[in-house]
Parts: sequence; structure tokens; C-alpha cells
Amino acid sequence: MTKQDLFVQIKKKQSFLCVGLDTDLNKIPEYLLDTDDPIYEFNKAIINATAKYCIAYKPNLAFYESAGLEGWLAFEKTVAYIKQRYPEIFLIADAKRGDIGNTSEMYARAFFDKLRMDAVTVAPYMGEDSVRPFLKKDKWVILLALTSNKGSEDFQLTEDANGEALFEKVLKTSQQWASEEEIMYVIGATQDKLFERVRKIVPNHFLLVPGIGAQGGNLEAVCRVGMNKTCGLLVNSSRAIIYADSSDDFANTAAKEAEKIQLEMANMLNKYL
Amino acid sequence: MTKQDLFVQIKKKQSFLCVGLDTDLNKIPEYLLDTDDPIYEFNKAIINATAKYCIAYKPNLAFYESAGLEGWLAFEKTVAYIKQRYPEIFLIADAKRGDIGNTSEMYARAFFDKLRMDAVTVAPYMGEDSVRPFLKKDKWVILLALTSNKGSEDFQLTEDANGEALFEKVLKTSQQWASEEEIMYVIGATQDKLFERVRKIVPNHFLLVPGIGAQGGNLEAVCRVGMNKTCGLLVNSSRAIIYADSSDDFANTAAKEAEKIQLEMANMLNKYL
Repeated sequence: MTKQDLFVQIKKKQSFLCVGLDTDLNKIPEYLLDTDDPIYEFNKAIINATAKYCIAYKPNLAFYESAGLEGWLAFEKTVAYIKQRYPEIFLIADAKRGDIGNTSEMYARAFFDKLRMDAVTVAPYMGEDSVRPFLKKDKWVILLALTSNKGSEDFQLTEDANGEALFEKVLKTSQQWASEEEIMYVIGATQDKLFERVRKIVPNHFLLVPGIGAQGGNLEAVCRVGMNKTCGLLVNSSRAIIYADSSDDFANTAAKEAEKIQLEMANMLNKYL
Repeated sequence: MTKQDLFVQIKKKQSFLCVGLDTDLNKIPEYLLDTDDPIYEFNKAIINATAKYCIAYKPNLAFYESAGLEGWLAFEKTVAYIKQRYPEIFLIADAKRGDIGNTSEMYARAFFDKLRMDAVTVAPYMGEDSVRPFLKKDKWVILLALTSNKGSEDFQLTEDANGEALFEKVLKTSQQWASEEEIMYVIGATQDKLFERVRKIVPNHFLLVPGIGAQGGNLEAVCRVGMNKTCGLLVNSSRAIIYADSSDDFANTAAKEAEKIQLEMANMLNKYL
């Protein structure tokens, strides 16, 4: 999927919402636990309820791995379901991988060749040769730059002798490895005060923006400084949508929450695009 | 397993070797591909051949994930086999995870509660709250500090206004989060020129040292500057042992290669401890 393809979807659906599938057996409605594959059943219900309001899904691998083999099976089935039923949806493996070259290559095989995801999130700490194996034709690397959590202050904001913060160095350096058709960046919604510095370095790239909702980021603040001429934003919401309601009516409530965000996004596109 | 427990094993086996189980279906002897679970059969043969020469195993998750469901099953079976047959062995999940708090917590559950690993490798980029969930009683975090690959130069060596490199900041900052009984650091064997700067900050910690063998690091150089009074080193070798021989005799050859390193390590313990 190209940048242009993404933008077409965004205009069509009037949405740049990515729904995070952080599915936790301890948080899904109890009646699902009696089914053969509770994680998959939950995901399917959420997907069918929200697909028209979003352009991307982002299963977070941690949630599937922590459920062991059944978790992996549910993950593979979820991906296959989306691919088959909603082929226009952009599929992000939120994995935050990054290892020496031959190992990153194995992860790339897992997520791109085997599972046919469109994108994978990658951690930059190990540098170029840990990222390159993920750069494949028609696939996307989404590199962590400035994350939404408190710990982002610990290292990402560290400045070198020229006053350049680590997240800025990551943005600059990684542009030598890949074009704006191959790489996006994770920039937390809670970092809206730093978005200007981000856009100075990567004016045209897409950014994956987690942290609205449960983590406290503000959509309008992000759009005002972050939106570019092809939108350039995929804003993720996980818990605020998928766990909005723990009753048997969870899918309907998730649809309503997703629609609410979609309407806000239509508004933002109208205002800032 | 405490630092002292590890040291007891090191003295007993006269070895501080960690064998990396980077098991790749494309590299294992062909006849194994006819068995029900080739990855597991390969691992079992390698483990039985090398257990007396090493004190730790380090399966690299990428290799198992890339084989999908069968890979995860083989990983779980391998871990269970080691736990049952060689309970004195230190088990490291080489996962290089690190995510916002609630997600890291899910990974910690996966590796520690579900799989009963002793340690997990964690990437520091997202800071304190991404690492803390892995700090559990009797378990170890092994934090990436200075890795063995070429890309380590891209960000890990970046210096701040005071001349402190990022890897040094990671070592210093993370000591506020955990004691030397809870945290170790990944320091590549190829970085022997920087080991002195590492040991200045973490004189007593254990270091996990990958990069001898296929990646070109030198064992004696590492021991000369890296060894401390409880050894303080777990030196990993993966490909140089497990793929030393692609014939049906692979396990015997692996044993010989592991023994060769163990004898060298006995020598180093005698010389530098």
C-alpha cells in the first residue's frame, strides 16, 4: 500500500483512525470465554463493528504472545480474517522489534512473508542494520521516534552537543535509509508540544500517533501541528474503543466510540487538510 | 537464580558460555525435516550435546516466530525440556522487547509466568516505564546497552553536551531502576575498546556478551577488561556452535566446539578471576 493509497482511503472514509487490537483475555466480556477461541471471537466482533470507521488495525503482539500458542493462533486468524474480509485496511504488526541483521531478517519474514502484514513497528536503538531487513517492497517500517509514555523522557529527549535530541537524530539519520514511501514514525499524541520539531525534519512522512484516549493525548492539538497535505497521520486508539463496554453489547459500543472519533477526524480533515 | 547462583555454576563448570539457540529451518540438517518437529529435535540434540559445557541457553525469539505456530510450539517445548532436564541452566529469552507499561507487562507475563524463563532481553529506547514491568522477583532484565552490530554506532555512541555517550546514559540511568541482582547489560564482544568505560559505570554487574565467533569478537580481549570478581560475563555463541557442521553428525561437532570454548574459558577464569 503506497502513501497515495492510504490517502485515498483516508479521504473516502473521512478517517485516519487506527484501531489497536490489544486483546486481553482478562478484559473481554466473560461470555466469550466459553467459545473455542475467545481472542479471535472478540477481535472479529470488534473488526466488523469498527471497520467502516477506521483505515488501519494494529494488533499488539505482546497481547497475543502472553496467551501462548492459542494467542498466536488467534493472531494469525485475526490477520487472515482482515485480509480476506477488509483487504483495503492497512495492517500494522505492533511488535517494536529490532535486532542484528540476520535476526531482524527472521522477524521480517514472520510479519511480512508469513503473515502478510503491511507494516511493522521497529525500535531504532540498534541502528541501521537492525532496521534495513524490514525495508521490503510495498511494506512499511514504522520506526519508534518519540513515544507517548513517560519514559520517553529518559533517553529520547537527550540532547547532543548541538542541542539535537535523540528523537531528532533518529528522524534525520533514518531518512538516509528509506524514503517517505517506506518509512513512518511513531510520535506519541502526548508529545504535541514537540510535533513542530518533528514536522520540521519529516514534513511529508506519515506518523503513527498512539496515545489519545487512555493515555491522555489530544486529537485537535495533534492535527493542528501534525497534519500535512496527504493527512500524514494515523491516529491510534486501543483501549478507549475496544474496552469501552465490558457487557455483551461491547461491539456496538465500540462502533459508537469509533464513529465518534471518525466524526471528529472528518472535522479535522475539513479544518486542517 | 541469583548472581551468586550463577557464579557457583560458572566455577563448577569452569564456563561462562551461553549457547544461542537461533534455530533456522533453512540451516538444520536435512534429515531432521522429516521428523514431526524439526526445530525441537534439533534443539534437543544441541542441548544434550552442549549442556555440560555451558551455563545458559538463549533462544532468540525471532527464529521461532518466523516459523509461525509450529515455531512457538517448538520454543515452548524447548524451554520445558531444558527446565526439566537441566534445571541448573540459566534461560534467557532473547526478545529485545520494550513497550508502554501495560504492554511490557504482557510480555513479562509471557516470558516469566507462562514460560518460566530466568531472563529477558529488553530494549531501553522507551525508558523506565517500559523496563519496570520486567523487574520481577528472582527474574532478570538484560538491557541492551552497547550492541555488537555495526548499527550500534548510529545512536548508542551519540554523546551529549558533557561527552556522555547514550550507552553510558543507559547504564547509569537504569541503575536507578534496579540493582545488580536484577539487571544485566548486553555489551557486544566487538566493543572491547569500550569495555573499560562500561566497567567504570557497572563494575559488579553481569554482562551478556554476544558477538564472539561469527561476528568477530575476541574472547581474551573481552575477559581482560570485562571480567570481575564474580566473573561478571555470560559470553554467547550461537552460529559458531550450532551450525558448526551441517551433516548428520552436527551434535557431536557442536559438542566439540562448545568444549573448545569452555576450555578457553577455564583458562580465562584461571588468568583473570
